Amino acid sequence: MAIDNTIHRDTICAIATPHGTGGIAVIRVSGPLAIECTSACWKGADLTSMKSHTAHLGKILFADGEVLDEVVLTLFRTPNSFTGEDVIEISCHGSVWIQQQIVNRLIDCGCRMATGGEFSQRAFANGRIDLSQAEAIADLIASSSRAAHRIAINQMRGAFSRELASLRAQLLDFVSLIELELDFSEEEVEFADRSRLTQLAHHILDIITRLAQSFAAGNVIKNGLPVVIVGETNAGKSTLLNLLLHDERALVSNIHGTTRDVIEDTITLQGTLFRFIDTAGIRNTSEVIEQMGIERTFKKIDEAQLVLWVIDGNTPIDKITQLSHDILQRTANKQLIAVVNKDDSLTPDIRQGITQALEQLLPPDTPITFISAKCQTGTDALQQLLIKAAAQPDADQNQVIVTNARHYHALIRAEQALTRAIEGLNNGISGDFVSQDIRETMHYLGEITGEITTHDILGNIFSHFCIGK
Amino acid sequence: MAIDNTIHRDTICAIATPHGTGGIAVIRVSGPLAIECTSACWKGADLTSMKSHTAHLGKILFADGEVLDEVVLTLFRTPNSFTGEDVIEISCHGSVWIQQQIVNRLIDCGCRMATGGEFSQRAFANGRIDLSQAEAIADLIASSSRAAHRIAINQMRGAFSRELASLRAQLLDFVSLIELELDFSEEEVEFADRSRLTQLAHHILDIITRLAQSFAAGNVIKNGLPVVIVGETNAGKSTLLNLLLHDERALVSNIHGTTRDVIEDTITLQGTLFRFIDTAGIRNTSEVIEQMGIERTFKKIDEAQLVLWVIDGNTPIDKITQLSHDILQRTANKQLIAVVNKDDSLTPDIRQGITQALEQLLPPDTPITFISAKCQTGTDALQQLLIKAAAQPDADQNQVIVTNARHYHALIRAEQALTRAIEGLNNGISGDFVSQDIRETMHYLGEITGEITTHDILGNIFSHFCIGK
Repeated sequence: MAIDNTIHRDTICAIATPHGTGGIAVIRVSGPLAIECTSACWKGADLTSMKSHTAHLGKILFADGEVLDEVVLTLFRTPNSFTGEDVIEISCHGSVWIQQQIVNRLIDCGCRMATGGEFSQRAFANGRIDLSQAEAIADLIASSSRAAHRIAINQMRGAFSRELASLRAQLLDFVSLIELELDFSEEEVEFADRSRLTQLAHHILDIITRLAQSFAAGNVIKNGLPVVIVGETNAGKSTLLNLLLHDERALVSNIHGTTRDVIEDTITLQGTLFRFIDTAGIRNTSEVIEQMGIERTFKKIDEAQLVLWVIDGNTPIDKITQLSHDILQRTANKQLIAVVNKDDSLTPDIRQGITQALEQLLPPDTPITFISAKCQTGTDALQQLLIKAAAQPDADQNQVIVTNARHYHALIRAEQALTRAIEGLNNGISGDFVSQDIRETMHYLGEITGEITTHDILGNIFSHFCIGK
Repeated sequence: MAIDNTIHRDTICAIATPHGTGGIAVIRVSGPLAIECTSACWKGADLTSMKSHTAHLGKILFADGEVLDEVVLTLFRTPNSFTGEDVIEISCHGSVWIQQQIVNRLIDCGCRMATGGEFSQRAFANGRIDLSQAEAIADLIASSSRAAHRIAINQMRGAFSRELASLRAQLLDFVSLIELELDFSEEEVEFADRSRLTQLAHHILDIITRLAQSFAAGNVIKNGLPVVIVGETNAGKSTLLNLLLHDERALVSNIHGTTRDVIEDTITLQGTLFRFIDTAGIRNTSEVIEQMGIERTFKKIDEAQLVLWVIDGNTPIDKITQLSHDILQRTANKQLIAVVNKDDSLTPDIRQGITQALEQLLPPDTPITFISAKCQTGTDALQQLLIKAAAQPDADQNQVIVTNARHYHALIRAEQALTRAIEGLNNGISGDFVSQDIRETMHYLGEITGEITTHDILGNIFSHFCIGK
């Protein structure tokens, strides 16, 4: 699985812990000369005779022999390390200056500064992890909810890789049968029962399709359920957003058309991540900039899975009726929640009138809730409606979910190639064409784990990692 | 040396690495139940049979048994750890979410969140380090130049503590002789040769005085050489400061009197830290706020060791003459550098005229340099003048330098008590008074290392540490 061993002859080092000052920081060294380079600035137990996985108190020295820091050094010998190479972790005092000086010393002693993700890239190149696992590490570090974390850690631990390996193994059996047939084509032997082959291909296609479809859910878990807040200008959309975000994220004022930019922010409610999209209010305007904002609103509604329609409770019923047509037209096939704002200023009669009107206007079972963004009432009920709307059918927690756009696109291409193969089988197309489509399917699946990959793809993936990982 | 063992029965945990996202992060656990608590959420090698100073790959589990993270755990068994207690360091993936979840799990399993500096405080309480060494760790983490770092690391490694221990031992001998004499006072025996005692006391006093005096230099090394920039309004002081700081730290405009606040910032030039103090321009003003700024200027000049007088090169000679009287009056006994700005607009004749005038007005050997803050010329020469002005007489690099105000004040009190003892000896005062003064001297020296201390002092010192240290 090694991609390019020649670039891994040198020894790299980097600060592995977050940037800044803390109690301690960790500097990581990896490569064939990790022990030799570190020994040149280390005073303590002899590194060459040190056992793997042991920690030692000692000193890092300046070039002139003065003590740079007292550190704890841990050695991980090849191949039992993160990268598979000799790895040394230096746990030093957490001053930015000391961290930098130690890296400088290591570079003086023959190391090279690691590039972003280079440790993970070496782990991949040395077969310690595959590409989807490497990507899962980045996802894991970025994950901020238990659901996102669960997907990342399952992927890191190889669940997705094992599923893909199984698919590739089945496809290999499949293609072998077809290609065996081709070898004996002059003898008109048919080793592979075409209907059984078609059945197997359909089975594999189902799994690939299931994985590709999981991307929508995976994307929600990773990036949040997109919720768009729409409504007339000054209905209180930005105030509501701020209430939900517990934050002054959006600029709030009582001037119509304050919000021109689309503002996005996320909150986690009971383990589900919501990505709120505030939008420019919808109204007829001659102002160009605001007009652009309104166009963006409609675009954002298209992307959203859930729409919060904020209605000023003081709006006359006929105006609400008119607005509802616009909104419903734009939100077909989307979940809608009607949020009547300014509840503090409404009489029970008005409240009842609005409820009745909305019940008639909106699809059955569309939730209608009253809030006062100003008095901060009604938001709990709204949050419960959000959580209910976001509830996914109970998925098996161990089921593989795709969250990575690169994997999704590879799965889609694999799906297309396999569909062509099935069509070929159905139409009695020559085995070598079918075989080619199957091999293409395998190729795309192999791209995900990195068994088949190019240097460009690798560079692109690992360059997004932080240095030291 | 243990101060309060009762508070260390519990086991503490905290994130020890800088706050934020990185490749990895380290969570530290310390206390009698470190192994027990961690075992409750750990899946991997048995911690109870694990050798000290060994690292192990394993998993931290959620309460429901799901994997929270794959981690490397390192065990340091009592007493061979930083705190002297059982210490476990968990090296996890560097996501903020994961770091927090692991801390939460450890707390669920019986740990308590550590307070700021609590690990160091335990190291002190368990006699692993003394108080001045604990303080040196904080200094070390804060140090940002090699000189400051050298002092902190020497102090952390116990150079100051050893010097103080030696002084206390000598004082103890001294006081023993005097007190022995007191025990036999009725027999009129004089065990201690008074003149030899006085000589010894003077020797100790010299060392204490030297240490106390080193505080000025130590303070410069730690906090930077204070440089104040003075001059008429609009002479270009703020622009010069920004040039030196390579930064837009000060608000620059061509409106007279823009700078009202005193702005401080630091740069390191060739290993010396400079603390620049920009000040409100000096001019007669009726504006109250600006007037306050000018008063602050004069106060800041008092604190500075080095004064940069910025002169607009277009100022008439008689005006410069008049200004020089004000400046010289305020900067007596301070190093002065005259910086003539707006060099880009000066003819050679004007330049020569200003130089001659300044040479006559200013003390001999006062450096005069021309710059154009606008064109960014002349700053290299100015930087060289700064470095030259800051050069301290070559100190022995291993000599102890006091940088901590608490230590300085304890040394001053020790100095006063010992001076009283010497006066007593000279005046033939009764031995028990002299003995009391010597014991007071020892007390103050003991405060520095924490051999004599109060809970308040300890709380005050460790509360300034970051959590996890």
